[in-house]
Amino acid sequence: MRAFSASLERLIEQFESLPGIGHKTAQRLAFYVLELPDEAARAFADAILDAKSAVRQCSVCFNLSDSMVCPICDSPERDTATICVVSDPRDVAALERTHEYHGRYHVLHGVISPMNHIGPDDLRIKELVARVAAGGISEVIMATDPNTEGEATAMYVSRLLRPFDVKITRLAYGVPVGGHLEYADEITLLRALDGRREF
Amino acid sequence: MRAFSASLERLIEQFESLPGIGHKTAQRLAFYVLELPDEAARAFADAILDAKSAVRQCSVCFNLSDSMVCPICDSPERDTATICVVSDPRDVAALERTHEYHGRYHVLHGVISPMNHIGPDDLRIKELVARVAAGGISEVIMATDPNTEGEATAMYVSRLLRPFDVKITRLAYGVPVGGHLEYADEITLLRALDGRREF
Repeated sequence: MRAFSASLERLIEQFESLPGIGHKTAQRLAFYVLELPDEAARAFADAILDAKSAVRQCSVCFNLSDSMVCPICDSPERDTATICVVSDPRDVAALERTHEYHGRYHVLHGVISPMNHIGPDDLRIKELVARVAAGGISEVIMATDPNTEGEATAMYVSRLLRPFDVKITRLAYGVPVGGHLEYADEITLLRALDGRREF
Repeated sequence: MRAFSASLERLIEQFESLPGIGHKTAQRLAFYVLELPDEAARAFADAILDAKSAVRQCSVCFNLSDSMVCPICDSPERDTATICVVSDPRDVAALERTHEYHGRYHVLHGVISPMNHIGPDDLRIKELVARVAAGGISEVIMATDPNTEGEATAMYVSRLLRPFDVKITRLAYGVPVGGHLEYADEITLLRALDGRREF
């Protein structure tokens, strides 16, 4: 026999359908929501619907945005001559947290992955080429993930951009700050040695 | 500068306000919801609002229910002469998963806890006494949590029920099935020895 009310069980199921949320956690979250004040529960529901209806891709950089042009592309304070190429909107968030990058972005929305049937045409690559071709860009920083697919994508994109008069760079490889040297893998150590700098 | 759209950040904040959900997980969940089909996202939002508006306490046992009387109290197949007393609706769910209990429940909605200023009048205790006083009950099983507050509450409730012609029992203490004996604490082992049964 169903132990809870049908509507509570539906809410538990909804939470359980989220990635990484098991049954116990789903139950805990559903009970928490049930005990929220009415307006807080409504705010949660509204946030889901608002995000679904309002969020689109910026028409310039394809980062997620509520407006046609995202706040970063729209800002007069950002350096319009520099584009940092990332594979995912979450990478924009990570880079923004450094507070040290003042250029614009270009979000590819994935990486080239033949295994997953994702080719260059499935990504925002031709839009990047068009941005560079339109002129006014001095540097493109490749900041795809430091793994095989990310590297291959960066390689592919940089080859397409080579005809244009633009500097193409990529993020430095090396040992992560705050880590332990002994846990770094050989490839990372090799790259850190290669990229060593004078004190 | 805000890296995401305002509505996406609001959704991340909503997930982050849930217990046990950190920023990274909230971000992951928000992106997942954003990629859901429209109707799935709407179903999620509706499940929150429905649960908030529909869920109430059963007028008989105070378990959570969509109707005045919950399916368990309403069922002609359940033994109406047995009441299992628990502190929380989640305990009903746990006991129902055994598929072996066929009586009804009574949910106290908490335990007596002087530290947290929760006294007997804050719980559904007088409603339980009224159910037993109304007659037709042969056994009351105390199934509050096996800790100090749960025990004290069970003790208090059972004392109130003593004047009535009703058998009062409680769940057996012992070593949990599937555990290792060496990890059992002394009190549990003592209770398991006390409650030993013939093979």
